[in-house]
Amino acid sequence: MPKITFYPDNKELDVAEGVSLTEAAISSGIFINSACGKKGLCGKCKVRVKDGKVETKPTGILTQEEIEKGFVLSCQSFPRTDVIVDLPPSARTGREQILKEEAKIEHLEGVLSKVKEIERLKSPSFPHSPLATKLFLKLLPPTLDDHISDLERLSRELASDIKIDLCTLREIPGLLRQSDWGVTAIMSKEKILYLEEGDTSHRNFGLACDVGTTSVVVQLIDLSTEKILDTEASYNRQLHYGADVITRIIFAKNKEGLERLNSLIIKTINCLIQRLSKEHKIDPSEITAMVCAGNTTMLSLLLKISPAYIRLEPYIPAFSFSPKIKASEIGININSKGALACLPNVASYVGGDIVSGVLASRIYEADELSMLIDIGTNGEIAIGNKDWLVCCASSAGPAFEGGGVRCGIRAMDGAISSIEIAGDYKVRYSTIGNASPIGICGSGLIDSLTELLKVEIIDRAGNIREEVPTERIRRTGDGLEFVLVRKEESALSEDIVITQSDISNLIFSKGAIYTAASVLANKMGFQLQDIKRLYIAGGFGNYLSLEKAIMIGLLPDIERSKLQFIGNSSLVGARLCLCSQEAMDKAKEIAKRMTYIELSANSDYMHEYTASLFLPHTDIDRFPTVNRKL
Amino acid sequence: MPKITFYPDNKELDVAEGVSLTEAAISSGIFINSACGKKGLCGKCKVRVKDGKVETKPTGILTQEEIEKGFVLSCQSFPRTDVIVDLPPSARTGREQILKEEAKIEHLEGVLSKVKEIERLKSPSFPHSPLATKLFLKLLPPTLDDHISDLERLSRELASDIKIDLCTLREIPGLLRQSDWGVTAIMSKEKILYLEEGDTSHRNFGLACDVGTTSVVVQLIDLSTEKILDTEASYNRQLHYGADVITRIIFAKNKEGLERLNSLIIKTINCLIQRLSKEHKIDPSEITAMVCAGNTTMLSLLLKISPAYIRLEPYIPAFSFSPKIKASEIGININSKGALACLPNVASYVGGDIVSGVLASRIYEADELSMLIDIGTNGEIAIGNKDWLVCCASSAGPAFEGGGVRCGIRAMDGAISSIEIAGDYKVRYSTIGNASPIGICGSGLIDSLTELLKVEIIDRAGNIREEVPTERIRRTGDGLEFVLVRKEESALSEDIVITQSDISNLIFSKGAIYTAASVLANKMGFQLQDIKRLYIAGGFGNYLSLEKAIMIGLLPDIERSKLQFIGNSSLVGARLCLCSQEAMDKAKEIAKRMTYIELSANSDYMHEYTASLFLPHTDIDRFPTVNRKL
Repeated sequence: MPKITFYPDNKELDVAEGVSLTEAAISSGIFINSACGKKGLCGKCKVRVKDGKVETKPTGILTQEEIEKGFVLSCQSFPRTDVIVDLPPSARTGREQILKEEAKIEHLEGVLSKVKEIERLKSPSFPHSPLATKLFLKLLPPTLDDHISDLERLSRELASDIKIDLCTLREIPGLLRQSDWGVTAIMSKEKILYLEEGDTSHRNFGLACDVGTTSVVVQLIDLSTEKILDTEASYNRQLHYGADVITRIIFAKNKEGLERLNSLIIKTINCLIQRLSKEHKIDPSEITAMVCAGNTTMLSLLLKISPAYIRLEPYIPAFSFSPKIKASEIGININSKGALACLPNVASYVGGDIVSGVLASRIYEADELSMLIDIGTNGEIAIGNKDWLVCCASSAGPAFEGGGVRCGIRAMDGAISSIEIAGDYKVRYSTIGNASPIGICGSGLIDSLTELLKVEIIDRAGNIREEVPTERIRRTGDGLEFVLVRKEESALSEDIVITQSDISNLIFSKGAIYTAASVLANKMGFQLQDIKRLYIAGGFGNYLSLEKAIMIGLLPDIERSKLQFIGNSSLVGARLCLCSQEAMDKAKEIAKRMTYIELSANSDYMHEYTASLFLPHTDIDRFPTVNRKL
Repeated sequence: MPKITFYPDNKELDVAEGVSLTEAAISSGIFINSACGKKGLCGKCKVRVKDGKVETKPTGILTQEEIEKGFVLSCQSFPRTDVIVDLPPSARTGREQILKEEAKIEHLEGVLSKVKEIERLKSPSFPHSPLATKLFLKLLPPTLDDHISDLERLSRELASDIKIDLCTLREIPGLLRQSDWGVTAIMSKEKILYLEEGDTSHRNFGLACDVGTTSVVVQLIDLSTEKILDTEASYNRQLHYGADVITRIIFAKNKEGLERLNSLIIKTINCLIQRLSKEHKIDPSEITAMVCAGNTTMLSLLLKISPAYIRLEPYIPAFSFSPKIKASEIGININSKGALACLPNVASYVGGDIVSGVLASRIYEADELSMLIDIGTNGEIAIGNKDWLVCCASSAGPAFEGGGVRCGIRAMDGAISSIEIAGDYKVRYSTIGNASPIGICGSGLIDSLTELLKVEIIDRAGNIREEVPTERIRRTGDGLEFVLVRKEESALSEDIVITQSDISNLIFSKGAIYTAASVLANKMGFQLQDIKRLYIAGGFGNYLSLEKAIMIGLLPDIERSKLQFIGNSSLVGARLCLCSQEAMDKAKEIAKRMTYIELSANSDYMHEYTASLFLPHTDIDRFPTVNRKL
């Protein structure tokens, strides 16, 4: 059995034959970037073998120079002898395991700061009726004259026809007498989930959870007061099996794959629950309820329901409305009888996260025409008001999360998050955590496009203008590229560049989102200019400049006061539904009301899309403020 | 490890130290009589050790002669060497394991013939809405224009908001496509229990079950047509742990005891299900629903819920209304997702069997004053009409089932079931299965009392008149006894007698039932004579003579046309509830409406009871027709 030693972590492990370096890293708790799902296509998992011999499948991604230096694709390489492997920061999904507590928030690029942001948005108010309530009951002990059964005694006290599981019923006779007829009933609507001895009603906690494709956020709530106690976030461990939902759906097509992805998301969530409960000295058994929002694929994987048919025409999910279950049915480590519910989905590519967003943004009760754009690997858009709601999805691609971009990385320490290019083509940038730069994340990429356009290094078609007099522009075998950071400054001792191909991918992504918004509005008889409230949600956090997003044509050029960034609206909606069953009823009503439009079947879409592949757009009149600046 | 060989079965087994002969017999599938719950009190388990040595606890029950012949109490004896044990028929609960199929019915003394009897009683008619229905659905395959989720597609076809478990939801995507969108939904109300490929709707079976303390009856029903396909019965395997509910409750007071009794009743039922399904070529997975009726203790043990507080003042059961569960939750071998429901209980000693009886007898909708008397180890009585319903219980004791009576046995081959005594004191009798007599069962005991009274061998106080000139009367160390069958005719080579003490026990039992009926009627402002319809239910089957039951004062002396024997009304009610959810709703309404009166708290009861300990009663005017005959 060959032994692998990973540097700089200095982790050693013995591996069986046929186990790739990536698989070995996963099992020792190191997050290796696997955007393509370990197919050897994305080149993100480039590592250097310093000692020993690996067998590696042929790939066209590595340059001859890299090969000579000992670089291999981790997912395609299998140790033949004991090996020592050096993991450059670029190959890591994030140094979650080794980051200090304080840094954790920062490296998720505002996942948490978004949470604070959203507090500025006045949430709709729903009656206080959490998914699970605790009621202390002091029952009258039975007598010969008052001889109703234990269960009916509880039911009488609760003044309703209660429901109960057999396993909970079995505990009742002993528990009532042990506790001298004083018990706490943990209820979900008219159902007794379980009983506890004595009065525990002052300790009732719940979790709201946003199950994202990339990151997972869990928020701890005191269910008695609805107070947010804390929020924790981490990467979705499924990232090892691909960056986007399609790669995951393919991985989950057989039973083993589905079970693997399910167990990874459960582990991700349980790890966050453990952190939260430890920090707040809460026993997980005191957490009685959880509400999850996420896209349709993530919710399917969470519930271990095959998402296979989501990606096959006509794109049908298994469910829109999932049953309320016991948390233990899927292995979530809260009270084993605690309740778990998911926000309803609308369609295969419009999930509970968007329903959650519509709920949180209150579009569903707006008098004026309103729109929600949720920017992610998938862009989802909802439009409407109190009378009607329509939505669509657009596969923007992973460019804004660093996928398909040479030096693109996810938000982490050292990611370039904002950029300015001066008239003399000098580049000023800032990185997350003020670390030495290792790559460019989403907001940095948007900034790059804007700045390159502003100083006319690229034209409105996105073409790099080779004639501009700066040595930062250079031609390689792959075409033109612009050097943002020279290797001397880079943590990787490599230039950080943005290539012509990167620019095209970014334009494809922004075009897809803008076009979807525009076509959806047109389809309903409106122009984007008609929108009175535009809510932007998504994974950019506080680093995103709305002004620059308009500049490249990602967002429409409308009056700035009509725009509002609402951060992680998926999480806010989940919290609303956790704290109020009326909110959950409203979410179900929204999911039923909302009409899904499949854009791939829309003849206008391709025409409009092509027109959008310009900066900001072929039709500059649509972007008057940008036109004035250019 | 000593080896035990049981004769005449010729079964051998090795047993560990400390295992009694009774326990050994149980584990080799031999039913040993254990009326007292293996406490060495009833003497029913007398066996003969033919070879080897057993250690036996001292007992006053065996005579010196018996001890010399090698008789021991099986439950109190532990092998010290290899032993050969002879099991006389009297020690057996029933030869269930070795009886031929045809004899099986007979030896349960009419459990099955009762089933036929009841068909004469016009059952109330309820709408056809079985606990589980099968619906074949031919779904429209999804298209880009009709892209609702799989679950909502099912829901739309069923035109209702359906409920579903997570585990069933997980099967949907694969199943719908495998079956080309033609599936059978197995539904219980608005809940999808599970789905099957293709059209299986013509194969939908259900079970009605009477879970008796002594015997268990299971009836197989075609749920599409409500046709009764077959009925099977057997002893409740819990009999090894005591004849009455109190002994069983005590045995179940710890977790192990409860689990043991639960597993025994489940085994009993599963064995009957296996017989029925084999005989009718039905796969158990085609059985989708089951409804059980039984007394409160039996239903508690069936659901593995502690019955401990039933026997402790103020006599509180864990539940009256139990939740509908999956059959597999308690290990019943029908479809693992099949539904199982129990008739509701009223109180600790008035169970779902009586609610079932009230439903079957239609007392609840009667215009006239009606009464139901269910005769068993516990006698339960309900009185009322469409406006009110009241009930009570009376612990009659096990005499009518052969308990506490020297030669009393349960109904089985060789049990004397009817008796006539001529003027010259010659005794004519008939036995079940026309076998050589081994003892007297319930109906034989009622006959004995009647005939002994008629020919004045006993007086109205039940005292044997020693002066009657017949050598069948004799005095032993235990007092007077009357020889019904001489040892030459008996299969046991022992006289079959009825003793003074037996007669007293029978009078106590009949007195308890009559008194309960009388006090209950009085309490409501009526005399028994006012009753317009009296329904008799219970374990006597067709062997019971109502006329003779009146003669001894067990039943009131009312106009014979007002009396109706309805057999196993518990089973009939269970079947009604299986075939119609409206019937189950009605049963719940009955259980809620019915007021339970605790007789032990009634001051009249003891006074009346004492007066009833006469044949037929101290107040002969209450029994005018009996008075004329005497």
